[in-house]
Formats: sequence, C-alpha cells, structure tokens
Amino acid sequence: MRILSGIQPSGRLHVGNFFGMMQPSIRLQEEGEAFYFIADYHSLTTVQDPDALKENVSNVAVDFLACGLDPNKAVFFKQSDVPEVTELSWLLSTVTPMGFLNRCHSYKDKTERGLEATHGLFAYPVLMAADILIYDSNVVPIGDDQKQHLEVTRDIATKFNNLYGDVFVIPEPKIRGDKARVPGLDGQKMSKSYGNILELFGEEKATRKKIMSITTDSTPVEDPKDPSNSIIVDLFSLVASDQQLEEMKDDFLKGGVGYGDFKKRLFEAFWEYFEPMRARRKELCEDPQYIENILKEGAARAREAASATLKRARHSCGITS
Amino acid sequence: MRILSGIQPSGRLHVGNFFGMMQPSIRLQEEGEAFYFIADYHSLTTVQDPDALKENVSNVAVDFLACGLDPNKAVFFKQSDVPEVTELSWLLSTVTPMGFLNRCHSYKDKTERGLEATHGLFAYPVLMAADILIYDSNVVPIGDDQKQHLEVTRDIATKFNNLYGDVFVIPEPKIRGDKARVPGLDGQKMSKSYGNILELFGEEKATRKKIMSITTDSTPVEDPKDPSNSIIVDLFSLVASDQQLEEMKDDFLKGGVGYGDFKKRLFEAFWEYFEPMRARRKELCEDPQYIENILKEGAARAREAASATLKRARHSCGITS
Repeated sequence: MRILSGIQPSGRLHVGNFFGMMQPSIRLQEEGEAFYFIADYHSLTTVQDPDALKENVSNVAVDFLACGLDPNKAVFFKQSDVPEVTELSWLLSTVTPMGFLNRCHSYKDKTERGLEATHGLFAYPVLMAADILIYDSNVVPIGDDQKQHLEVTRDIATKFNNLYGDVFVIPEPKIRGDKARVPGLDGQKMSKSYGNILELFGEEKATRKKIMSITTDSTPVEDPKDPSNSIIVDLFSLVASDQQLEEMKDDFLKGGVGYGDFKKRLFEAFWEYFEPMRARRKELCEDPQYIENILKEGAARAREAASATLKRARHSCGITS
Repeated sequence: MRILSGIQPSGRLHVGNFFGMMQPSIRLQEEGEAFYFIADYHSLTTVQDPDALKENVSNVAVDFLACGLDPNKAVFFKQSDVPEVTELSWLLSTVTPMGFLNRCHSYKDKTERGLEATHGLFAYPVLMAADILIYDSNVVPIGDDQKQHLEVTRDIATKFNNLYGDVFVIPEPKIRGDKARVPGLDGQKMSKSYGNILELFGEEKATRKKIMSITTDSTPVEDPKDPSNSIIVDLFSLVASDQQLEEMKDDFLKGGVGYGDFKKRLFEAFWEYFEPMRARRKELCEDPQYIENILKEGAARAREAASATLKRARHSCGITS
C-alpha cells in the first residue's frame, strides 16, 4: 500500500499542524510505503519571495524529521525535485474538463481571502492530481478541506483511463479523524489565518506567554468550572497523560483552582511533550547537509516511481521518446 | 538572433500551410538560429488518438524535411522531447493572472467550434509562453491568429521579470506577410476546417481532379476573363515562373482560352514545383531511422538551451536543487 502526503512549506508549523497532519502522517509510515513531499511548486502560488520559500522549505524538512518522520521508512522529498509531475500535469490537463476546476471551492476561497487570482492557483488541483497519480498512490490522508480535490483527482484519473487504457491507480482518501480540529488560543480552529496559533517550536518565554494569554471566562477561582467547554482542557488532552488529564478535569469540577494554574499545567505538559523533538531539532539544525542528503535520496526514489508512471502515461496517449 | 516556431502536427499538410507557414519558416533558417518544434503536447488538446498522433507527428517531420528544413541549420525537435517546458509552464502559471487567459479568443473560438472545453485548451497560452521563453527566443514568426498569444507571452515574461529579476528575453513577433492567405479551391482562405484544401503531397490523379474542380464563372471560352479575380491565377502565381504567370494573365485578358486549359497549366506548374520535394519525401519515407536521429539530435540541442533557462527561472523564485 502506497500512502501519499504533500506538506505545504508555508512558514513555522503550529500545534494544529502537528496534531492535525504531521502526527497522523508520521504514524502512517508504519502502515505502508509512505511518500511524503514538501510542496514547494504549490507554495509558489502564495509565497513569491525566494528567500522566504527556501527558509520555509528548510524549516518544514527539519520539523518533520524532528517530529519523527523516519527517512528509512518514508520516502521524503521536495516536490520540485521530481519535475515529472509538471509533465504529467500537462497530460492530465488535456483531458480535464474546465468544469472540474470551475467547481473547486479552494480557488474561490483563496482569491476571496485576497490572494491574486493566478492561473497557478486555479490549475493547482491538476498538479495535485499529478502528484498523487504519478506515485500510483493507493491512499491519501487528507483533511475535510481537501476532499473535493481528491474527488477531482479520481475523476481525472478515471477519465484518462477511460480514454487511454488502464494507466492510473485510482486513489482512496483517508479522512483525518478527531484530532484534526485543534482549537486555537481563541477557541476557533487553530489556523495561521486566524492569528490564534501556538508555534510548535517557539521560544520558551513566548510560548509560556501565549498559553497564559488563552481567553477564559470570569468564573472565580473557588467555583467549579466546566472541563467540557475549555480550550485549556482540549489542548491539555493532546499533550498530557491520561492521568494528568483526569486530574485536571477533576480539579475543574471541584473548584478551588484558577485558570492561571491550569494554564501553567498546560504549558508544562506542552513543553515536556515536545522536549525530545526540540532536542532532535536542535541537532538537525546543526547538520543541514544531512537534511539535504535525505531529501536527495528521497527524490531519487520518488523519481524512479514517477518516471515509470509518466512513461506509461506518455505512451498511452501516443507520445513516444 | 534565435527564431522559434512551433508546428502543429494536425494531419496532412496542404498548400496553404506550405506558403503560409512552412516556406517562410524554412527561409528564416538562413537568417538566425532557428528552433523549430513539432507541437505534440499541444496536439493532445485536439487529437486524443495515440495512433493518429504518432502518424501526424511522423508526417509533419517528413514533410518539413522534404520541403527544405535543413537540420544542419535549424534545430528540429519534438516538443515532448523537452519536458522542461512543462515545468517552466508551471512556474509561469504561478505569476499569470487569470485575466490574461480569460481574454484569449482562441479558447472560446475552439470550444465554440465543438472542441471539448478542457483545461489543456484553456491553459495552452501558458505552455506556449514556456515554449518561447525557454529558448530565449528573440523572434517568433506568427500568423495574425497568434498575435494575442504572443502578447500574453510577453506579458507573462515581463511580470515574471519584474517579480524575480531579469530571467527571460522578451520576444518580438514577426507577422507573416502577403502569402499567408492562400486561397482554397472555393476562394475562401485555404483551411482544413473549410474543406477546401489542396494537399501538398497528394496522389497525382487526386490532385489533378481537385484542381480541375476549382469553381469558376461561366464566361465563354472565347471571351476575355479577369485575371485579378481568379483563384486559378492566385494559386498559379505561387508555383509558376514570372514568365508563365504573365502568359496566363495575357491569355485571360485576350480571351480564346477556357478555364479548363488554365487549370491544366496550374496542375502542371503545381506538379513540377513540388517535384523535388516529392522525390526527397519518398527517400525520407524509406529511412525513418534518419528522421528519428535528426529529431533526437535536435532534442539534445534544444534541451541544453532549455535547461539553462529553466535553471535560471527555478533559482530566481527560490527553488533549489
């Protein structure tokens, strides 16, 4: 079973990214042959600053490795190191009805949020289809917001297969579960665009300050509080042991403990949870050549798979070489 | 000076193609470094039959070489042998406003003529821009119908340069002159879609029959006829010597010669004009390996130029490898 996941290098990762996407992806490396790529081609639709792009790519690579992506299990590479996807993207474009793309919400959403309405943004679902199909991916772990794009991928693949023969594997989505919606510091879904994130690898002081600033209600210290409706408890549940979590919930219900204390417990559990990853990250940052080698080896393995599929696709439609 | 021209492999070439596009392109090989490619990626937007595509590509290669394209002067290759253009096409897409493409007539024209409204058809101007820009082309010979696409190419290149530095050469169009509008057998512009073509390398009997069927008015043999308003004279002027042309015009004005005789003269001049190309074509058809070698060598030279530009473009926007 081949599992494919694309990672957007769109700046510093936050806790929502970690529990929503990184952790499930990293766990999946145990269940099949995982192909994970850093989507730098895609990133160009939003980041048009070469230095920022390079920094983002480098950060996301370090972060994923620090968090447990194992390059001996997963194939880890940069999208742009496998240019074959752009060629497959063209082949797919020639069979993709405009209606498939006109229906996609994400282009409209993004341009309404103020991104420039470029052809890259519009055409992205075709590139995504190429990314998925070129590796004969069986399973694609996605969030709810990517459901439609995976549907488009399946539709394009089916159309191509109907026209030219059995070229592509039709991929199945694997919708991410409960933890996908990590609350931000204001209670909405954690998202950079809401400005409510908690950085994964922020400085200690800044992280503590952010956690201490979580909005709470004005229940007095001595009164009981509702653990089922608390950002603090929700975030704590992600990083604390079951026992710690039970204790906190009890203390909420009993009363006598203030939000400030709960926030301190949250900070401590948070800091401890990510301690080994922080340490690993520090090591990795001191050895950029190691990261580069991993991505290079990943790219070589990915290209091998990509070339085989591309060759099949080219031949099927009458392009010879 | 680098000159770029793309050739659509869309079936048997006709006399309109020859005088409108092939002959001027072939003459240009004397004036600069010509890069001529067979646009098979593009062709996929209209020909979705692998065998037909292969046959069209092979025919157009033979026809161009038979008509005088000199592989020692021009770099002659297949578009799909330089997949770098698809990668550049993606990079360009990320800076191409949708407005540039929405304004293009050709997508609307083609879908109105019944072609399926695919993303390939819509996105084609971006691929065309990549084809032109990747070879640092200075001059692009085009017909009137391609003016707008070249404008789009220039606009995309300018936008990319403004954003990322001086990456692309801005190409100049060279609009084709008088002979571009060769009359078809019914007097309209010769075009496959009007069903009025005269094949370049048709069988002798069929060609004669087609020429003899040219529509004329009912002026009696003995009466004078108007040479300035005759398809026969217009076509004759393309293939006859100046002296033969003067004689025909005189005979039109004098009267006493019927249209049938003029058509015979046209057929004979036509057949003689293309005789050396027909002979060369026969030779070439017997040596497909020779053609393949030419296209391979052309592709190698084209890829060298393409890789250099692509590298520049990738680095400028922060994609490293």
